[in-house]
Amino acid sequence: MVGGGPGAGIAESHRTAMRLDDRYDLVAGVFSRDPVRSHAFGLGLGLAADRLYPEYQAMAVAEAARDDGIEVVSIVTTNETHHPIARAFLEHGIPVICDKPLTLHLDEALDLYHLAREKDLIFALMHNYSAYAMVRQAARMVRDNALGAVRLVQVEHASGWATERLEQGDHKQARWRTDPAVGGEASVVYDLGTHAHQLLRYVTGLEVSALAAELSTVAPGRRVYDNAHVMLRLSNGARGVLWASMVATGQEHGLRIRVFGETASLEWQHEVPHHLTIRSLDGSTRILAQGGAGLAEEAQRVTRVGLGHPEGFLESFANLYTDVADALLSKRDGIHSEPAAISYPTVRDGVLGVRFVEAVVASHAADGRWTDATIAI
Amino acid sequence: MVGGGPGAGIAESHRTAMRLDDRYDLVAGVFSRDPVRSHAFGLGLGLAADRLYPEYQAMAVAEAARDDGIEVVSIVTTNETHHPIARAFLEHGIPVICDKPLTLHLDEALDLYHLAREKDLIFALMHNYSAYAMVRQAARMVRDNALGAVRLVQVEHASGWATERLEQGDHKQARWRTDPAVGGEASVVYDLGTHAHQLLRYVTGLEVSALAAELSTVAPGRRVYDNAHVMLRLSNGARGVLWASMVATGQEHGLRIRVFGETASLEWQHEVPHHLTIRSLDGSTRILAQGGAGLAEEAQRVTRVGLGHPEGFLESFANLYTDVADALLSKRDGIHSEPAAISYPTVRDGVLGVRFVEAVVASHAADGRWTDATIAI
Amino acid sequence: MVGGGPGAGIAESHRTAMRLDDRYDLVAGVFSRDPVRSHAFGLGLGLAADRLYPEYQAMAVAEAARDDGIEVVSIVTTNETHHPIARAFLEHGIPVICDKPLTLHLDEALDLYHLAREKDLIFALMHNYSAYAMVRQAARMVRDNALGAVRLVQVEHASGWATERLEQGDHKQARWRTDPAVGGEASVVYDLGTHAHQLLRYVTGLEVSALAAELSTVAPGRRVYDNAHVMLRLSNGARGVLWASMVATGQEHGLRIRVFGETASLEWQHEVPHHLTIRSLDGSTRILAQGGAGLAEEAQRVTRVGLGHPEGFLESFANLYTDVADALLSKRDGIHSEPAAISYPTVRDGVLGVRFVEAVVASHAADGRWTDATIAI
Amino acid sequence: MVGGGPGAGIAESHRTAMRLDDRYDLVAGVFSRDPVRSHAFGLGLGLAADRLYPEYQAMAVAEAARDDGIEVVSIVTTNETHHPIARAFLEHGIPVICDKPLTLHLDEALDLYHLAREKDLIFALMHNYSAYAMVRQAARMVRDNALGAVRLVQVEHASGWATERLEQGDHKQARWRTDPAVGGEASVVYDLGTHAHQLLRYVTGLEVSALAAELSTVAPGRRVYDNAHVMLRLSNGARGVLWASMVATGQEHGLRIRVFGETASLEWQHEVPHHLTIRSLDGSTRILAQGGAGLAEEAQRVTRVGLGHPEGFLESFANLYTDVADALLSKRDGIHSEPAAISYPTVRDGVLGVRFVEAVVASHAADGRWTDATIAI
Repeated sequence: MVGGGPGAGIAESHRTAMRLDDRYDLVAGVFSRDPVRSHAFGLGLGLAADRLYPEYQAMAVAEAARDDGIEVVSIVTTNETHHPIARAFLEHGIPVICDKPLTLHLDEALDLYHLAREKDLIFALMHNYSAYAMVRQAARMVRDNALGAVRLVQVEHASGWATERLEQGDHKQARWRTDPAVGGEASVVYDLGTHAHQLLRYVTGLEVSALAAELSTVAPGRRVYDNAHVMLRLSNGARGVLWASMVATGQEHGLRIRVFGETASLEWQHEVPHHLTIRSLDGSTRILAQGGAGLAEEAQRVTRVGLGHPEGFLESFANLYTDVADALLSKRDGIHSEPAAISYPTVRDGVLGVRFVEAVVASHAADGRWTDATIAI
Repeated sequence: MVGGGPGAGIAESHRTAMRLDDRYDLVAGVFSRDPVRSHAFGLGLGLAADRLYPEYQAMAVAEAARDDGIEVVSIVTTNETHHPIARAFLEHGIPVICDKPLTLHLDEALDLYHLAREKDLIFALMHNYSAYAMVRQAARMVRDNALGAVRLVQVEHASGWATERLEQGDHKQARWRTDPAVGGEASVVYDLGTHAHQLLRYVTGLEVSALAAELSTVAPGRRVYDNAHVMLRLSNGARGVLWASMVATGQEHGLRIRVFGETASLEWQHEVPHHLTIRSLDGSTRILAQGGAGLAEEAQRVTRVGLGHPEGFLESFANLYTDVADALLSKRDGIHSEPAAISYPTVRDGVLGVRFVEAVVASHAADGRWTDATIAI
Repeated sequence: MVGGGPGAGIAESHRTAMRLDDRYDLVAGVFSRDPVRSHAFGLGLGLAADRLYPEYQAMAVAEAARDDGIEVVSIVTTNETHHPIARAFLEHGIPVICDKPLTLHLDEALDLYHLAREKDLIFALMHNYSAYAMVRQAARMVRDNALGAVRLVQVEHASGWATERLEQGDHKQARWRTDPAVGGEASVVYDLGTHAHQLLRYVTGLEVSALAAELSTVAPGRRVYDNAHVMLRLSNGARGVLWASMVATGQEHGLRIRVFGETASLEWQHEVPHHLTIRSLDGSTRILAQGGAGLAEEAQRVTRVGLGHPEGFLESFANLYTDVADALLSKRDGIHSEPAAISYPTVRDGVLGVRFVEAVVASHAADGRWTDATIAI
Repeated sequence: MVGGGPGAGIAESHRTAMRLDDRYDLVAGVFSRDPVRSHAFGLGLGLAADRLYPEYQAMAVAEAARDDGIEVVSIVTTNETHHPIARAFLEHGIPVICDKPLTLHLDEALDLYHLAREKDLIFALMHNYSAYAMVRQAARMVRDNALGAVRLVQVEHASGWATERLEQGDHKQARWRTDPAVGGEASVVYDLGTHAHQLLRYVTGLEVSALAAELSTVAPGRRVYDNAHVMLRLSNGARGVLWASMVATGQEHGLRIRVFGETASLEWQHEVPHHLTIRSLDGSTRILAQGGAGLAEEAQRVTRVGLGHPEGFLESFANLYTDVADALLSKRDGIHSEPAAISYPTVRDGVLGVRFVEAVVASHAADGRWTDATIAI
C-alpha cells in the first residue's frame, strides 16, 4: 500500500476491505511522505520492518526484486500523485489498485492506460459504488432489456459534507480537496462527479457523447468548484443530467441514479444500498432486496449473508478487492478471462473519467457550450 | 365556468374544489364548443337553462349585465384559448380564475396582466401545488431564514404519464397536449415546467435570472417536446436545475423540490404532500407533518382535519379557490389586502411562467446558450 | 344531521364529504343540545329556519311527515347518544348514517340492528378507513387469493393524540373521550379499536373468534383505558394481534394493517393511504398506487383524479357518503342490490364492533383469559 | 472455534467479523462432528494441523495446556450443544463467545452462568443486533431520558424466511431449526424471540416481569412452533407486545422495535440499521443517521466510516467481537472495567433469554395465562 497513514480515513476502509474476505495480506508499504511516520505506522500495522520503505520508487524496485514480492499495490494517496506512483509500479511489473480519480490530467491518465496495456497488467480503479450487489443487479437488468431502451438518466452524487468551510479548520480531507493543486480546481467533479459518471456508464452501458456544464463555488471564499450541474447527451441518443456537489446541505452521501427506459425505470440510492427500485408503466413499483430469490448471478456473487442482512460500504470495497484477487489469480494461473462489463472498473474507466472532467471544465469555460466528451480508446 | 365539459378531467377537480369548502355556487357556463353538448352538460350539472351560453363572449356580456351575475369566472379550457376568453371577461369587469399556463405567448400574457391591473380585477392562476399546506410551510421557513441563504435548488416535475404515445389512441388530454398548436411545441414546459418554475419561485422567493436548456422529444414520432432539462441561475446568485418530463417512465406524478441553504435544506414531494423534510448540517433529518403543533400560520390556515389525516390534490385545489373567495370578498367589501407572497398565484406569476417557457425555447434554439429569463413587471 | 355544532371537528368532515361529490343537500338538523346555539349554527350553514329543530325526536317526526323530508339522517353525536337518536329516526322510517362506535352496549346495538332489519332501512356506520381505494384493493386481492390463505394479521390503530392529558384543558374531544359515561370505560377500544377491528374484518373477510386482552391506563390519572393489547384467533384459524392506543407518543394517526398469507403479505398504512404494499416469498416488494393501471374495479370506483394525485381523509369520508347515496337511490328506485362485502359498513358491522369491545373488556376482567368474541347475527 | 464447518452460514459471518477489525486470529478449531471433514475444513481455513481437534473436549484440554493457547473460544454450534461445549471450555479457564440462545433449558443456562462467575471468565452472547451503532444510540437516549419514562414497547422479529416448509428439502438451517430436539419445540422463540427480548431489554433497560403468550404452528405439518404472540408487563409497569415469527411472509428479516415514552418515541428497524427515528409530541419526526454529528459516544465508538456510508450486519458482528477483544485485553492486563449496560451481552443475558422462553412456553401451556418471567440473578 502506498499512502494511508495516520488520519487518512479511506485507507482504513481499504485495509478492512482486504481482510474482509481474507484474500489479501498487507505485507509492504509507504504510509506517509514522512519516512519516520511511515515506518512507525507500518510497524503498528504489524508489517515487517524490511518491507517498510521510505518512498514508493524504492518499494517498487525492491518488491519487484523479491521472490515473495507484492502481487498488487494499492495506491490511496491524493489525486495529483496517482500518476507517478502508479507508473513506478507498472514499470516494475506490479499490478495496481488505485483510488479514483485516476489522475488530474488526461495525458497522465492515457499514459497509465497505455503502460498498463503494454505491460499487460491489471489496473483496477476504486469506484466502489458499482460493486454493490444491487448496482450489479441494475446493470444486468438494463443489459437484459428489463427497461427497454434507455431514454433518460438522472444521476447525482450530491453530498453535504463540505457545506461549511471545513478547510479553515484542520479537517485533513477538506484541506486537500479544496486545494486546487491537489484536489483539482474542479475538485467536486474529480471526487464525486467521476463516481456519478462511472455509475451511469456502469449501469447503462452507455457513454457520454457531449455535455453542457456549469461549475460553481457555492461556499464563499472556497478555492475550488464545489458544485457542478451537467446536462448530458449519451451515446445512444438518450439525455441526462448529472449533479455533483459537496455543498448539498444535509444530504448524507447523496449518490443516486435513476434510469428511465421505454417500459420501466430503475432507481438506486446509496442510503439504502441493499434495495433496488423498479417502476413500471402501470404505476406500480417493485423493490428488489439483496439476497432475494431470483436475482442475477452478478448480484448473488457479491452477497455474503442473505436477505434482510444489510451489507454496506465496506462490503462494496471488499467486493472490488475480491474481484481483483480473482482476476490476479486467473492471470497468474494462465486462465484467460475477459474483463466483463459488470465487473471492477479499470484504468480505461479512469481515462474516461478524467476525459469527462476535462469536458466539464471546457464546457464551463465556454459558458456552458455543448462540448464533445468522447475519446477513442 | 368556461370549458370543462364531457371528458375534461381537470374541470371536475375544479368543480369539486369549489364545493369542498362551500364558498362557491356554479351558476353559469359554457362547457363545450358545441352549444348542444354544452347546454346538455350544464343542465346535467343542475344549472338554470338561461345561464347556459352558446359561447363565452355572450356569457361575459350577459353575466356582466345581471344583478346576480357571476362574481368570478373559472377558465378550464386548453392553453391557446386562455387569452381571448380571459380578455373577454376582464373587459366586462369579471374577475378570473384561469388554468395554467396563462397563455402560449408572452404578448398575450402581458396583455392580460396589464388589462387586469387597469381594470383592478383579481386574476388567479391555478398553480395548485403551491397551495399545499406543507409547501406554504416551506415558503414560510425559507422566508424566516430556517435554511440560511438559498444556494442550490433542484426542482422536477417529471411524470411518466405520456411515456407511451397515448395520443395515437383516443386519450383526449394526450391528443391536445401533443398538438403543437394547442399544447405548444414546448408542451412539457408549458404544462409541467411552469408548475416546477412557480413552485421554485413560491418556495424560495427567488426569480430565475438566466437559464440554459435542452428540449427533447423522447417518445419517437411525437410532435412536441416531451422532456426538458434546464440549468438555472437565480436572482440571488444561487444555482439550480429544473427537469420537466412527461416521459419519466413509472414515476407517478413526479413533482419534487429540494432547496439547499447555508445551514439546512428542505424537500417536498407531491407523492406524500402532507410531509415536509428538513435536513440539517449535523446529518439529521426532520419530517414535519401537516397538522402538527408549531407549524406556520400559512400552513394551519389550509389544514382542515389535522395531524395524521392526509389531505390531497383536491384539497390543494380547494385551498386556492378558497383563497380567491376570501380575496374577492375583501375586495367587494372594500377591505384592502395586499396579496402576500405566500398566497394564490396571479396573472403576474402567469406572465413570469410564459417568460420562462420562452427563455427555455430560446436557449434550446441557441444550442443551450445561457439566456436571460428576466422581465420587468 | 344530528350533532356537529360549534367545535365538533369531525362533523365538519361529514359536511365536506357530503358536498364533495355533490350527492347530498344538508337541509335539516339539530346541531347542539342547546336549542339557541343549534338554531344559530344551522342558520349559519344556510339552512331554512323551519328545518332547524330543538331536539332530535321533533326532527324525526317532522321530517318523516314532510313530502320533501330528509332521505337519510347523519348522526355525529357522542357515543352514548347514538342509540336513542338512531332509534328515533328508524322508527319514523328514516335511514341512518351513524358515527362509530354504534353504541356503548351490545343490547342497544342489537336493538338498532333488529329495528333496521324490521323496517328494511339502510343503516351505514362511518368506519371511513375501509373506504380508501387501496383498502378496497386490498380486500379484493385477499378475496381473489392473491396472498393465499390468510395466516397472520397485525393491525394497529395507535395514535399519539392523547399522550398528554389534554382532558385537563378545554380540549373538547379529549374531555368526552376520557369520560367513562360518554366515551366508555374502554374508550380507546370504542374509538380506535373498533376501527382496527372493522379494518381487519373488511380486508380479510374473517371474523374474530376469540381474544385475549389487556387494557391499560397509560397516562397517569386518566379515568378510562387508553391502551389495549389484544391477541386474536380468527375464524379460519389464523392468528393476530390488535393494538389500539391513544398514547402512542409521536405517532400521527397510527392506523396500519399487515396481512400475511401463504404466498404473500400486504401492508396498508393510513399515513400514505394511496399506496398498498405487497410482499412476496422471493423477498421482493411491490407498491401499488391509487390510479395505477390494473387495479380492481372496487378501487377504481372510488378514485377521483388518478395516478400521482393523492386523495385523503375527506375523500374516504366522501366515498362512504357516495356509496350510501347510491344505495339509497337503488332502494328508492326499487333496484335490488345486495350489500357487497367490499362496500360501506352497516349496523351489522356496528354490532360486531360492540361485541368485540365487550369481549375485550371481559377478557381483561378475567386477567387476559381467552374469551369468545362471536355472536350469531 | 467450535462448529461452523461446511454449509454453516452464520459461522462465516463470525469469521469475517473476527477479521474485520483485525483483532482476532483464528488458530484452533473443531468444525464438524465428523473429524475428517473438520480437519479438512480447518486446513482449508489455513489453520495448523496440530490445532485441529477431533472433538471439543480435546480442544479445551489441549489449548488450555499450550502457552500460546486460544484466548477465547467461539461456539457456533446448534442450540442443544451450547451447554456441554461452553462448560468444557469454562472448566479449562477459557473465555467463551457463544451463539444464542444460550441453551435450551434454564438449568443449563444457570449452570453456565454460575460457572463463568465462579471462574471469573468473560462469557459473551452473540445478540449482534444490539451492537448496531444506532441501537446503542437508542439505548443511550432512553437512559438519558430523551423519551421520558418508557410506557409502551412494541418489538418484533418477524421474518418470512421459513414461510414455506423448507425443511422438507435440504435447507440445512430449516432442518435443524424445525427439529424440536435441536431448535427447541418453541423454536421461533429460541431463535428470534430471544433476539427481540434482548433488544427490548438492551434499549429500554427494563426487564420483563410477566407475560401472556400464544404459540402457533402456522405452516401446516411443521414440528415446532413457528409463530409467537406475547403480551408483556415490564419492570417499571410499562406494557408491551413481542411478536416472533419465521412465517411472516415476505418480510425480509423483520426485526423492529418501537419504544414509547412520556414525551417522545423511538423506532429502529433492521432493514435500515444506520438510521434511528425519534417521534415527538408535536407530530414531527427526527431521523438520526450513523456518523452524524452529536451522536452518543456509544454510537460513535462502533462507527467505522461515517455519515452516509452504511454499515451492516457483518459490522454489527464485528462490533461485538471487538467489544469482547477489548474486554479480554483489559482483563488480561488487569484493567478493571465494569461491564456497561450498553455493551456486549453476556451469559446473564443468556439466562434471562432462556427464562423468557420458558415463561412463554408455560403461559402458552396455561392457555395464555399471565405468567411470571422474573428470575433472581
